[in-house]
Amino acid sequence: MRITAPIILPCDEPCSVLRDNAIDIDQDGRIVRVGPIADAPPADGETVALPGLLMPGLVNTHAHTPMAMLRGLGGDLPLMRWLQEVIWPAESKLDAGDVHTGMVAGCVEMLRGGITTSVEMYFFIDAVLDAVLDVGSRVVLTPGIIAAPGWDRLGTWEYLRDEVSERIDAHGIRFGPGDRIELGYGPHGAYTLPVEALASVAEHAKARDALVHIHVAESAQEDLEQRAAHGSVPALLDKVGLLDGRLLAAHAVQLSDEDVALLGARGAAVAHCPGSNAKLAAGIARTTALRRAGVRVGLGTDGPASGDDMDLWAEARLAGLMARVSSGDAAALTAAELVLMATRDGAAAIGRADIGVLEAGRWADLVHIDLADAAFIDPDDDAQLLSNLVWAGGSRLVRDVWVAGEQVLADREPTRVDRTEATTKLRAAAARLHS
Amino acid sequence: MRITAPIILPCDEPCSVLRDNAIDIDQDGRIVRVGPIADAPPADGETVALPGLLMPGLVNTHAHTPMAMLRGLGGDLPLMRWLQEVIWPAESKLDAGDVHTGMVAGCVEMLRGGITTSVEMYFFIDAVLDAVLDVGSRVVLTPGIIAAPGWDRLGTWEYLRDEVSERIDAHGIRFGPGDRIELGYGPHGAYTLPVEALASVAEHAKARDALVHIHVAESAQEDLEQRAAHGSVPALLDKVGLLDGRLLAAHAVQLSDEDVALLGARGAAVAHCPGSNAKLAAGIARTTALRRAGVRVGLGTDGPASGDDMDLWAEARLAGLMARVSSGDAAALTAAELVLMATRDGAAAIGRADIGVLEAGRWADLVHIDLADAAFIDPDDDAQLLSNLVWAGGSRLVRDVWVAGEQVLADREPTRVDRTEATTKLRAAAARLHS
Repeated sequence: MRITAPIILPCDEPCSVLRDNAIDIDQDGRIVRVGPIADAPPADGETVALPGLLMPGLVNTHAHTPMAMLRGLGGDLPLMRWLQEVIWPAESKLDAGDVHTGMVAGCVEMLRGGITTSVEMYFFIDAVLDAVLDVGSRVVLTPGIIAAPGWDRLGTWEYLRDEVSERIDAHGIRFGPGDRIELGYGPHGAYTLPVEALASVAEHAKARDALVHIHVAESAQEDLEQRAAHGSVPALLDKVGLLDGRLLAAHAVQLSDEDVALLGARGAAVAHCPGSNAKLAAGIARTTALRRAGVRVGLGTDGPASGDDMDLWAEARLAGLMARVSSGDAAALTAAELVLMATRDGAAAIGRADIGVLEAGRWADLVHIDLADAAFIDPDDDAQLLSNLVWAGGSRLVRDVWVAGEQVLADREPTRVDRTEATTKLRAAAARLHS
Repeated sequence: MRITAPIILPCDEPCSVLRDNAIDIDQDGRIVRVGPIADAPPADGETVALPGLLMPGLVNTHAHTPMAMLRGLGGDLPLMRWLQEVIWPAESKLDAGDVHTGMVAGCVEMLRGGITTSVEMYFFIDAVLDAVLDVGSRVVLTPGIIAAPGWDRLGTWEYLRDEVSERIDAHGIRFGPGDRIELGYGPHGAYTLPVEALASVAEHAKARDALVHIHVAESAQEDLEQRAAHGSVPALLDKVGLLDGRLLAAHAVQLSDEDVALLGARGAAVAHCPGSNAKLAAGIARTTALRRAGVRVGLGTDGPASGDDMDLWAEARLAGLMARVSSGDAAALTAAELVLMATRDGAAAIGRADIGVLEAGRWADLVHIDLADAAFIDPDDDAQLLSNLVWAGGSRLVRDVWVAGEQVLADREPTRVDRTEATTKLRAAAARLHS
């Protein structure tokens, strides 16, 4: 298949703007060529001529998407009270069916905002994976491993760890059509697991080269406790061996200069969630310092319970606004840097060289953006185009989405599931859980 | 005419949620009754049964909407360099036709996000007013009065002041169909006008009971200079008599405790523009302190050159996020408070008792919100409804808009002008200005 577009953003370095280019995609759904239409060899199969802008699918590096039916619950509470008084009690009523329902609705919402891949920390593994395969999106599922009060109904942390290890041993870390599924480990946080659990998960993950996805220094309370006990959360992660492997630190708000330097030196990655961090009054992560220290920084929506909408374009804008207002530097993150953070950098943060950039060899995860919108005042000018895309454009302009070469969103509607039905089921689950 | 809806938010205190109510509107476009459908008298004229949520039109308290064709120009520069190196030179090429084009496109964009009234500081009075009357929205136009280098082509500040006074003397401060137009004074700022100009504008405005709309303490540089010269910008405004009349301070970022107390004691109002202030690295306005001091605080998008999109829902969310992250209080601004800030409080900030709330006697400026969207997970629960509306909903859910009882947006398209034509003209103007 060949797709042509007047503008293609491959999201390579330094965010080039290609005009009148074509993308050739093989039967498996991988890109075989990105180049000028004028020089293209004869197309292999059908040619689709798109009128808008084509770019890679966005990578959401931190989410708990099945919580869609808890959207906005307890919206005016700080993190620890919100978790303990509202969210954990509500989650205790969720069953596998609810998780499937929430994940389907959330994946549809993400596709409509151009997110093709999300990194999910959640429970009920089969329900999450079935939902992703139903909608046709892509997931890195790091099932939650937790030992906090009330969570023992799911099993001990050893049981939750082994559930992941056994699946990886059976399937490998990536599997499914178009490698749509990757499995990793989701130890919840340093404040919800004993030290030996963190060390054990580090060993299991390292043996399998799997991603470890963990909440790090999100709130001041967590940070204070961990500093008193272990020096800091990053110092603890280092001590237990988690920085030896693939480590994705979600939030990473409360970091000292030493913590930043340690994460950089050990090649860790951060999932930056500016919206959730601001809404829960957790703080502003130090993205500029982290990037300067060599930490790979991607963007995350967090779950819909605290992040409300699953909108990575909104997070990109917020990342820029928060970096600027906290540093006093109006060029702290440019439009080009924010586009890359939502795509290429997100893929790099989770150690994926097969998505996030449009180039030969990667999966054809594509987003088609409406260029006719008044957001774009001068699409012929590269700088203006990127500025308008990030600052005045966003999710509402996403028209079509492909994952591994398969169209999964067409004119804003999912191709595999019915959106109205997904919403109806979501509301029924919400009404039951709230009652 | 009668309009019914399953949910009506009148935006009264304390943000009540009315179910199965009707709004009756007279021939002039004023509301005559809001109350239960069950108790309603026989309808006078047609009845429209809406399926969604009905609320007042949003009030954008600070904008330079005609700059739509400069959207995002120089997007990575701090305020003073951005003004002097990019924006003012670009603006020097604008003519009345461009201003009309930009204002039409911007008003269409605002209607599509539910904004029915905007407070505009701009030049070319007739072009701005004609555009508003073409689209059918509502405006408080405070034409710019400025004496900065390069701006003398528009005339002296005395000339610009007299242009406003003469029009008010001819028409009154409010006129046009449905009182769609209000005129006031727009002295640009303390750093772009001599002190005697500010004093003279204060006198002209007071004599006519007109609104004065001025940039106040937006950047640290402005604040430093004015503190050295006059104590502070608010102190200067007080000295020249501007706090004796109707005063709307745009931005008001750099305020001391004394400045906040002064603005509160003198009954001033603030147009809070968190997006523009963050993007230009100007800072975070002290909304919580201002509200506590009795200052009326509305929301503003600022112009599209620095604000990019004209999205007041996005500003409401940002206001909440910025208040929370800067105060460390996760309940700093609740969803209900943010809904009121975008409607009732905005109207109060500009001294309008005839818009911003749905109640008998006010103009029927109405917004119809799509309730079928997955943003709303439990519309039967009042708290959940408000939370989802603010944090997960927004501009994309606006379906229909009425101004003074006249439908000006139907199923997301303007009824009086063609949106594609407006965008085409906007791009042609942008291309010419950028060349």
